[in-house]
Amino acid sequence: MAQNPERRAALVNAAIEVLAREGARGLTFRAVDAEAGVPKGTASNYFANRDHLFDQVGKRIHERMGPDPAVLEDSVRRPQNLALAIEYMQALFGRITHDRSGYLALHELRLEAVRRPELRTTLTRPISENLERDIGFHLDSGLPGDRSTVVMLYLAMSGLIVEHLTLPGVLEAVDIDALIADLVTRAVATPDA
Amino acid sequence: MAQNPERRAALVNAAIEVLAREGARGLTFRAVDAEAGVPKGTASNYFANRDHLFDQVGKRIHERMGPDPAVLEDSVRRPQNLALAIEYMQALFGRITHDRSGYLALHELRLEAVRRPELRTTLTRPISENLERDIGFHLDSGLPGDRSTVVMLYLAMSGLIVEHLTLPGVLEAVDIDALIADLVTRAVATPDA
Repeated sequence: MAQNPERRAALVNAAIEVLAREGARGLTFRAVDAEAGVPKGTASNYFANRDHLFDQVGKRIHERMGPDPAVLEDSVRRPQNLALAIEYMQALFGRITHDRSGYLALHELRLEAVRRPELRTTLTRPISENLERDIGFHLDSGLPGDRSTVVMLYLAMSGLIVEHLTLPGVLEAVDIDALIADLVTRAVATPDA
Repeated sequence: MAQNPERRAALVNAAIEVLAREGARGLTFRAVDAEAGVPKGTASNYFANRDHLFDQVGKRIHERMGPDPAVLEDSVRRPQNLALAIEYMQALFGRITHDRSGYLALHELRLEAVRRPELRTTLTRPISENLERDIGFHLDSGLPGDRSTVVMLYLAMSGLIVEHLTLPGVLEAVDIDALIADLVTRAVATPDA
């Protein structure tokens, strides 16, 4: 297996573009080589098979969409802050709408996972770990709300991002920043507590 | 254009199965004929082209996933009822997890809409209308909450359903009925009102 790390990264990023544009069925080694502008056969030197490529793509998407470390540090310095929780979600939305390909590729992978049990296993782990990390982070940093708050925000933000990326006209009349603020404010309210 | 309504309905339902299983790229007239068990060439007598087929599929999915009229009537008889709003969302989740193909097909269509502006227009209209109808219904029947409540529930339920259908392991440890109850309870709380 070839090991030039920059080239491997470039191939994985090219695969994300192909996936976002063509769907999982269009993701072939040949298409990745063409997208990355490298000689035919290059991708097959870097990935044992398509499952291996899918696996690397899943990991890379999560890196690309992860939070800015500066924002995380800021949260630790300003605990119990609702405004910060709102900013954090607004930043997530901004980040993802600036990396359309990453999120669309992840969505293509999700649908492909319905058909490929191995890919399902591969994707479930990092997504579960990210969610657990977000829950731990939320609780440890003293942000308002509880475990359900984080699950709820995760689900609603996923729904919002998919809607916005695929059928932007549906929420055309909605002020997204205000909606996110409203969403966070309600999710942290724990009526039963 | 051939007009036998039962056959047309059977072809559209077959197209939903193909779409859920194979993705948008796999949706060909030939695959629809095979899935419906009809002679080759039948689908092309019923649909002018693939856009026409996509359009019919989009409409049919919305019919399949719409609420039970009895539930709607019940809501009108028991206004301002939080428990009813919870039941309503739990029923939605149950209905969709019993029609996996419909929802997965809708999701394949969403991703295909990123690539096909005409399909985007076709899908945006019924989805926007459904959301507006849900908002109007919610407000008219005196259920607690406001316009944002319904948008929030719509987005969070979409996120939940996609997560559950594509990577069920992520929410394996979560009691979904309790999560939905929690979600509705918080979404109807309007802290600024």
